[in-house]
Amino acid sequence: LSEGPAPLGRLVAELSRLPGIGQRTAQRLAFHLLRADDEEARALAAAILEMKEKVGLCEVCFNLAEGPRCRICEDPRRDTTVICVVEEPADVIPIERTHEYRGLYHVLGGALSPIDGVDASDLKIAELLRRVGDGGVREVILATNPTTTGEATALHIAEQLRGQATVTRLASGLPIGADLEHADEVTLGNAFTGRRTLE
Amino acid sequence: LSEGPAPLGRLVAELSRLPGIGQRTAQRLAFHLLRADDEEARALAAAILEMKEKVGLCEVCFNLAEGPRCRICEDPRRDTTVICVVEEPADVIPIERTHEYRGLYHVLGGALSPIDGVDASDLKIAELLRRVGDGGVREVILATNPTTTGEATALHIAEQLRGQATVTRLASGLPIGADLEHADEVTLGNAFTGRRTLE
Repeated sequence: LSEGPAPLGRLVAELSRLPGIGQRTAQRLAFHLLRADDEEARALAAAILEMKEKVGLCEVCFNLAEGPRCRICEDPRRDTTVICVVEEPADVIPIERTHEYRGLYHVLGGALSPIDGVDASDLKIAELLRRVGDGGVREVILATNPTTTGEATALHIAEQLRGQATVTRLASGLPIGADLEHADEVTLGNAFTGRRTLE
Repeated sequence: LSEGPAPLGRLVAELSRLPGIGQRTAQRLAFHLLRADDEEARALAAAILEMKEKVGLCEVCFNLAEGPRCRICEDPRRDTTVICVVEEPADVIPIERTHEYRGLYHVLGGALSPIDGVDASDLKIAELLRRVGDGGVREVILATNPTTTGEATALHIAEQLRGQATVTRLASGLPIGADLEHADEVTLGNAFTGRRTLE
C-alpha cells in the first residue's frame, strides 16, 4: 500500500498474514479500524496481547488453559472415566456445544502425517497412554477428523490402547441436511456400514 | 466462546466487530494468532495502535496523512491546477495505482444521502469551494461513485462550482472484460451515451 501513509501500509501487511485474509480484505479491515473509535481499535490490540500472554495449554489434557489446568479438567462435575481424543484445541468447542459429552478431553496437537513429517512423538500420544495407564479410564472416544490422517491417528492410538479401555470412534455418515445425490461415495459408504436398526 | 479461556473469547468478540468477519472467521483468526509466533501477534497489535496514533487527515485535502499534510499535497511534482474529488480516502488508492493522474485530491468523507441524514454540511464541500475559490484550479474532476448518492453529490458540487473551473466527471461504461449479455441496462446506457469516435 505504497500510496498511503506508512503505518496504514504496515497494518495492511500484518493483517494480510492472517489465514484467508487477502490484500483487499486487509485493506478494508485497516480502513475500518482507521475510521473506528479509538476504543474499538485499542480493545482489539489489547485482546490480541492479552490472549498471547494468558492462554497456554493444560498440563493434563493440552486443551487451552488460562492457568496450569483447563476449565474442563478443573470442573468436578465432569466424568473422569471417559476421555475424548481430538486433534486440536479448536475441536473441543463444537463438541462442548453439543452438550452431549460430559467426560474429559485429550488434545493431541495434530494428526499423524508422514508426508508432513508428523510422527507419534510429535503428538501428545505418550501422555494419553500415561493417563489411561494411571487407571480409572473406562472409555477412550477417538474424535480425530474423518480424514486420512485423522483415521490413521485413530487406528494407531486404538492399537496402543488395546486391552486397557474401551476404545470407540465417532460415527461417520451423512450430515443432517445433506442429500444423497450429492454425497461423496466414502461418506455414503460409511453411512451404509454404520446403519442402525430403527425400533 | 464460553467454552474456551476468557481471553480467547474476548479476542473472538473483538475480531467479530470487524466488517465481514463473522463468528466462525473470528474464531479461526483467534486460533491462528494463538498458534502464531509471539512476534507475529505483537506486530499486528502494534500496527493497529501505531496506525490509530499516527494517521490522521490532511488539513488541505482530507486524505490520510501522517503529519498535517498528506504525501500527495506535499509532493512538489503534483499538478496543483487539477483537483480530483472522491468520497473516501480508500478511493485515492485505486486512482493512484492507475498512474494516469498527477493532480491533487479532495476527500469529501462520504456522499450526500438524505435517507442516512448526510447533507452537504457533513461533507468537506465548503472546504472544496474554498480551495477552488482561492484560485489556481483549472479543472475539478468529480470521481464520486457511480451510485445514486455519488451522482447526487457530483451534481450538487458541479452546480456550486459553475463558472469557477472546468468540472468533469469520470466516464461511465462497460468495464474491461465485461460482456454485453450480462451488462445491466444503466451501465449499457451510459456506454452508449458516452461512446467515442474511433480514429
